[in-house]
Amino acid sequence: MAIKRRKISVVGGGFTGATTALMVAQKELGDVVLVDIPDMEGPTKGKALDMFEATPVQGTDSKIIGTSSYEDTKDSDVVVITAGIARKPGMSRDDLVSTNAGIMKSVTKEVVKHSPNCYIIVLTNPADAMTYTVYKESGFPKNRVIGQSGVLDTARFRSFIAEELNISVEDITGFVLGGHGDDMVPLIRYSAAGGVPLSSLISEDRIGEIVERTRKGGGEIVGLLGNGSAYYAPAASLTQMVEAILKDKKRVLPTIAYLEGEYGYNDLYLGVPTILGGDGIEKIIELDLTEDEKSQLDKSVDSVRNVMDALPKE
Amino acid sequence: MAIKRRKISVVGGGFTGATTALMVAQKELGDVVLVDIPDMEGPTKGKALDMFEATPVQGTDSKIIGTSSYEDTKDSDVVVITAGIARKPGMSRDDLVSTNAGIMKSVTKEVVKHSPNCYIIVLTNPADAMTYTVYKESGFPKNRVIGQSGVLDTARFRSFIAEELNISVEDITGFVLGGHGDDMVPLIRYSAAGGVPLSSLISEDRIGEIVERTRKGGGEIVGLLGNGSAYYAPAASLTQMVEAILKDKKRVLPTIAYLEGEYGYNDLYLGVPTILGGDGIEKIIELDLTEDEKSQLDKSVDSVRNVMDALPKE
Amino acid sequence: MAIKRRKISVVGGGFTGATTALMVAQKELGDVVLVDIPDMEGPTKGKALDMFEATPVQGTDSKIIGTSSYEDTKDSDVVVITAGIARKPGMSRDDLVSTNAGIMKSVTKEVVKHSPNCYIIVLTNPADAMTYTVYKESGFPKNRVIGQSGVLDTARFRSFIAEELNISVEDITGFVLGGHGDDMVPLIRYSAAGGVPLSSLISEDRIGEIVERTRKGGGEIVGLLGNGSAYYAPAASLTQMVEAILKDKKRVLPTIAYLEGEYGYNDLYLGVPTILGGDGIEKIIELDLTEDEKSQLDKSVDSVRNVMDALPKE
Amino acid sequence: MAIKRRKISVVGGGFTGATTALMVAQKELGDVVLVDIPDMEGPTKGKALDMFEATPVQGTDSKIIGTSSYEDTKDSDVVVITAGIARKPGMSRDDLVSTNAGIMKSVTKEVVKHSPNCYIIVLTNPADAMTYTVYKESGFPKNRVIGQSGVLDTARFRSFIAEELNISVEDITGFVLGGHGDDMVPLIRYSAAGGVPLSSLISEDRIGEIVERTRKGGGEIVGLLGNGSAYYAPAASLTQMVEAILKDKKRVLPTIAYLEGEYGYNDLYLGVPTILGGDGIEKIIELDLTEDEKSQLDKSVDSVRNVMDALPKE
Repeated sequence: MAIKRRKISVVGGGFTGATTALMVAQKELGDVVLVDIPDMEGPTKGKALDMFEATPVQGTDSKIIGTSSYEDTKDSDVVVITAGIARKPGMSRDDLVSTNAGIMKSVTKEVVKHSPNCYIIVLTNPADAMTYTVYKESGFPKNRVIGQSGVLDTARFRSFIAEELNISVEDITGFVLGGHGDDMVPLIRYSAAGGVPLSSLISEDRIGEIVERTRKGGGEIVGLLGNGSAYYAPAASLTQMVEAILKDKKRVLPTIAYLEGEYGYNDLYLGVPTILGGDGIEKIIELDLTEDEKSQLDKSVDSVRNVMDALPKE
Repeated sequence: MAIKRRKISVVGGGFTGATTALMVAQKELGDVVLVDIPDMEGPTKGKALDMFEATPVQGTDSKIIGTSSYEDTKDSDVVVITAGIARKPGMSRDDLVSTNAGIMKSVTKEVVKHSPNCYIIVLTNPADAMTYTVYKESGFPKNRVIGQSGVLDTARFRSFIAEELNISVEDITGFVLGGHGDDMVPLIRYSAAGGVPLSSLISEDRIGEIVERTRKGGGEIVGLLGNGSAYYAPAASLTQMVEAILKDKKRVLPTIAYLEGEYGYNDLYLGVPTILGGDGIEKIIELDLTEDEKSQLDKSVDSVRNVMDALPKE
Repeated sequence: MAIKRRKISVVGGGFTGATTALMVAQKELGDVVLVDIPDMEGPTKGKALDMFEATPVQGTDSKIIGTSSYEDTKDSDVVVITAGIARKPGMSRDDLVSTNAGIMKSVTKEVVKHSPNCYIIVLTNPADAMTYTVYKESGFPKNRVIGQSGVLDTARFRSFIAEELNISVEDITGFVLGGHGDDMVPLIRYSAAGGVPLSSLISEDRIGEIVERTRKGGGEIVGLLGNGSAYYAPAASLTQMVEAILKDKKRVLPTIAYLEGEYGYNDLYLGVPTILGGDGIEKIIELDLTEDEKSQLDKSVDSVRNVMDALPKE
Repeated sequence: MAIKRRKISVVGGGFTGATTALMVAQKELGDVVLVDIPDMEGPTKGKALDMFEATPVQGTDSKIIGTSSYEDTKDSDVVVITAGIARKPGMSRDDLVSTNAGIMKSVTKEVVKHSPNCYIIVLTNPADAMTYTVYKESGFPKNRVIGQSGVLDTARFRSFIAEELNISVEDITGFVLGGHGDDMVPLIRYSAAGGVPLSSLISEDRIGEIVERTRKGGGEIVGLLGNGSAYYAPAASLTQMVEAILKDKKRVLPTIAYLEGEYGYNDLYLGVPTILGGDGIEKIIELDLTEDEKSQLDKSVDSVRNVMDALPKE
């Protein structure tokens, strides 16, 4: 009955997965297992060991191990899935969806087998469809399978607004509904700086530009990096979600949640405001939408369903 | 040209002053000087030493000293004034105002003499009039004399809402205009939980009750303590303001600022939304008010002016 | 099976208890219950509410409640006991011991009844005898009843050394064996600054003076405060112990542990180096002592046994 | 005279440089400029933007920019140099030294031009010779040019010991003298766990193995990664040094310092225990060495001088 450290497993030892492992350990949320395929065992172990060697300097007690064996993830409290391929030039979107769905299935089988009581957070793109796939494969109740996209989109929006107004990032609130990136539905009227509505601080046109930049936020980073995609802000977003669950913080965060009638949709995973706490998605918050917002959300849903059509049929 | 620690002096070694010193040191914002009158030199030194002895365990490097000599506050970056008496049974409000105004004047003289370039934050009640007094006495530009009341009022409001909704305190935004306590003008339409307007989460009646509880928040603590008034939340609020200045965070915070035409008022200190950064109050944010809000604010201003009338004339 | 916040109860709502509650909440270690006798219910509730109102500003999610009912402590993970009286002028030491032992017994009964699986940390003086009393009354295994004294003594020693050498408090290590205060046995040869032995940095005489100041550290604060005793450093020390357990950090800390043959003593609680983790005192570290150290420790043990003789017999 | 954020520039946008920028920003030590060559401008900007987009989630106010123009580093308080090439298969050590020395010179010229009052921390390998090169090129006083190696070596040693003993990394102290890696001289008798000498906790043989693993610590990570070298622990070590300077913490840390007679050596940079604070290396601590330690150190110095011989002559 001794008190045990929490355990967090991160599937996928690439940049986002590794950075998530780092940030989770920095917050001393528990011990961390970074898991990747056998071919990547060396680098995965290397990154984990390097991170562990940083802990004395950071003053945090987290064991961090790299592995290619899911045995090591046994009894995780939270599992974060970042595994999957990125879309390559010439690859059709359907190929991407079908490849990553296959990865989700095999990963989920392993995760569920070793941690039947865990909470799963999915980052892999396209996140709505991949979270859906993990949900179906896991057999878990819906509150325990959660997708990430809105925390990241909101973080980008907030950083752009903070820069525009030259004020603290801590004071910007805002959030988005719907799909990730292009399909995102920003709720500007709910965005504020220190409680002051954005509309009284920035011109409508300028807000429009910032929204557009947010939509293309992932692409902006891809364009700059030349080779690869964003990982710092995605990892920070995942870490915030892990923390919300492990500390039962009951944060109000936009996450990809399974809808059963909320907002008029059924049987799909979609970005909506939720309460994220010790029991995963504890509540979906339903907002009154304007007609325009609702129609944007419909379009976003169409786009999500479109992707879901490319999922391999059982 | 070596890099030097910042220096923060806290005037008044009572519960609020001491707790502020503790919190500033916990955040490693700089070295801390706790200063009180010669009669209180022992306890002031004792508290400071006790706090310093806690630093090895907390892993923070802040020298903390207690003193009754303003020499020790020399070249402070920020000075927090918590000195003053509390209203005693049978004491008229005018007596309170005049006594505390006298204390403000003598404290300010000493502060200015030893730290001519500092930023001053005033907590002493009635805060609007006391901040005005310090401003006049100091001869400082208005951005360098700042009063506290809105951060605390907002903190209370946020904690009550978080409790009501059973969600994270991190996600509640909200703020107030005008005077402290009874005179406060809460801007409910600008309050939200994770960006979701409160009005869609709580009934209007219940919000009204929570606003009322916030207004009486100081009194609620006084009533419970039986002997003394709140100090933890006030100290945390002061510490947030100190941090905003020392880290040049440019936080959007409600502070008591000197108005020269903003909101239609002149030559008074009033609670308004401001940007607080490395140059103190860097900006006053002017909101469009509804007629009702404006009339509440007028009443609040009347009340502030009323108190100011009790200030000793030169 | 949702993840729940940890729960920490602090018995005794005086300065040390309240400050411990604050610091535990600041570290977001879990929800906090501050409990005191019915006569003190108002102030206890007031302090807790004031602390809770500080959480939005501090960005930490901890419910903090004040109460006089042990029902509210139900299922605590850790209980910290700070209750007890201080020695008053004219009071014999035996009277102090017997009064506080009575308090320990009644508190322990309540604690055990509502949290049969908790870990108990005892601060009340004289800590060795009081921890022993709690141990006997609780019927808990020895690893789950832990006394505080060495963390505080060491913290004081470290802060004095840091000041003497003008270096970071983070880099001083050192520890003490035996009883609290006068009876403490400082192991100078194990003390270092950044790994550098103190003896190569400070003269033996000066170290002797600092040891002496450490021994009298509690008295120095009492003398300065005039009325009351230290609470910041004691609370920080208790908080570090709570954190070590709740995060299963396996810290090497000097605590008051139950000895069964270690160091040649039996059936007493004494300050020794231990490993403090998720199962309380997971190990007692036995050091090779010099003859001189051993004889000092014997004296310390005599003194502890002396106090234990004053414990009320069953 | 407004209070300004500190400014930290990191030269070299590779993994170590970028991770250092991240960690410095996470600690809110100031604004961060990540600078690399024009060819790498895109990725450098991309990483910096990605990090900045993480700040709203992390709740820290740091502007982070990527650039290829040293203009942007103007008036930095601290500059960290991570630029340089890694040794490639078939490359002679002398070629490595001469290439990196060339890079150090051109980087230093730019750094000094734009930040004539900064403190420089050098990571580039071989660190002793590269720090020497930067020192000579900069014309700065010796206290303002500091090399990193001992913090990292010590961190590795501490993490291995913590794992071996299954105790907190926070409680292990230890340090090394001399060169990095193979040439490092570990001072075991000054290493302890919670103040308890390692020798009473681990067998001599096992300590020897752990020392050997520490010596080869960099190589272990290189071997695992397959392609590239460690960056998490190096970045954490650099960040700790930046923090020690910017917060004037006066940490006792092993750094690469310029010797003028200390330990009997002259005109070389060598790893020794130092006090690192607001004026850079404020003091070199001279330890009494055993004959064996001194002879190991002599060998380490020979090895450093050997590398220095490969430095391009003026």
